[in-house]
Amino acid sequence: MNTPLSELAQQNIIKLITTNKLDPGDKLPTEYELADRLNVGRSTIREAVKALASRNILKIKQGAGTFVSSERGMIKDPLGLSLINDDVNLAFDMINVRLIFEPEMAALAATNATEDDCAVIGEACTVVEKLIENSNEYSREDSAFHEAIARASGNKIIDRIVKVIHSSVQKNIFVTEDSLKHDTLIYHRQIFQAIKDNDIVGARCGMIMHLNNLRNFILKKRKP
Amino acid sequence: MNTPLSELAQQNIIKLITTNKLDPGDKLPTEYELADRLNVGRSTIREAVKALASRNILKIKQGAGTFVSSERGMIKDPLGLSLINDDVNLAFDMINVRLIFEPEMAALAATNATEDDCAVIGEACTVVEKLIENSNEYSREDSAFHEAIARASGNKIIDRIVKVIHSSVQKNIFVTEDSLKHDTLIYHRQIFQAIKDNDIVGARCGMIMHLNNLRNFILKKRKP
Repeated sequence: MNTPLSELAQQNIIKLITTNKLDPGDKLPTEYELADRLNVGRSTIREAVKALASRNILKIKQGAGTFVSSERGMIKDPLGLSLINDDVNLAFDMINVRLIFEPEMAALAATNATEDDCAVIGEACTVVEKLIENSNEYSREDSAFHEAIARASGNKIIDRIVKVIHSSVQKNIFVTEDSLKHDTLIYHRQIFQAIKDNDIVGARCGMIMHLNNLRNFILKKRKP
Repeated sequence: MNTPLSELAQQNIIKLITTNKLDPGDKLPTEYELADRLNVGRSTIREAVKALASRNILKIKQGAGTFVSSERGMIKDPLGLSLINDDVNLAFDMINVRLIFEPEMAALAATNATEDDCAVIGEACTVVEKLIENSNEYSREDSAFHEAIARASGNKIIDRIVKVIHSSVQKNIFVTEDSLKHDTLIYHRQIFQAIKDNDIVGARCGMIMHLNNLRNFILKKRKP
């Protein structure tokens, strides 16, 4: 569907965003200006802009113009998991991946988290606690807690990958049992405290304990 | 841009693919049949099919029909890294992520690899060796070696994530120095042999050594 010209225009529009340090929400030049600046036809620009919108790099607002998307180029279900029809086993694969990844992420956060990062993690921790205490659904806020730690790790790829993992966890979580809620209360707090105290081993172990409880739960659900 | 109706039609088309176990390359029913089966208008089907094509779940071939895409729902640059303008630091973040992830993936492969998996990994190993011996570029084939190990891990999420990581590595590899080539020859072979021998520790350590050499190289490139 993409012509080579449109591909090139896409790359040039991305370059324009990065070199001008445009932020999410910033407005792009008009189609006319872009065509002029990149020295291609307006139909090529239109095709490139549509393709970048489908990649969540741009957002087209009818009548208002084209803007840098707040999705930062990340699409729904980027791993294509909706094509895999195997829910308990997929949940098990997912928790194994999280056990490889998130303890090290927590350890990095314990080294690199700024005061601002800690404030965000602490706030996310409190939000989940309140939801659990009031018996409300909290899976999205749970993801926000883990994503805040990913950002605090200081590694931009970890930040992105954890967003990818958690956008997939949503559809694979058929859990949140009462016993897990209790564990979440304890271990989220412990992980947060360890990160705040620069306690690398504590942060790593807190995350292992937290995820392993979830793993045991999924393990029981699998066919023997 | 997506209407709720089109969103729902997308989900139903995905369900149709998974419940009928359609493989990449298989043809979908016509627009007319889909509209009839899912009980929505043809314009909704057209919108849904276009959206699924932009997510690489479907492939539209002009005049021939609509097919299940061989990309398995994975798009180019799914982490949105093209929006980050920081190449050496990004390469460093990436190698750190690979060091968290790939040694465990190699250990899993040493447990779970079938004979077929081993044949694929061995073949990928040989291809890279020949390219290096003939002083050819080999980054794509290097990715194929690592992706074959990911598949052999038996974890479907690892399989997908490593594809995501390596599609991003391509653009961040400005490396492949002679010293690295020599190390690649040694460690690829060692990793392959360990996986074949069900030697978990050997596979994990081989991968750590291999990636750490790359990390040291990137470390030197960073500003002091």
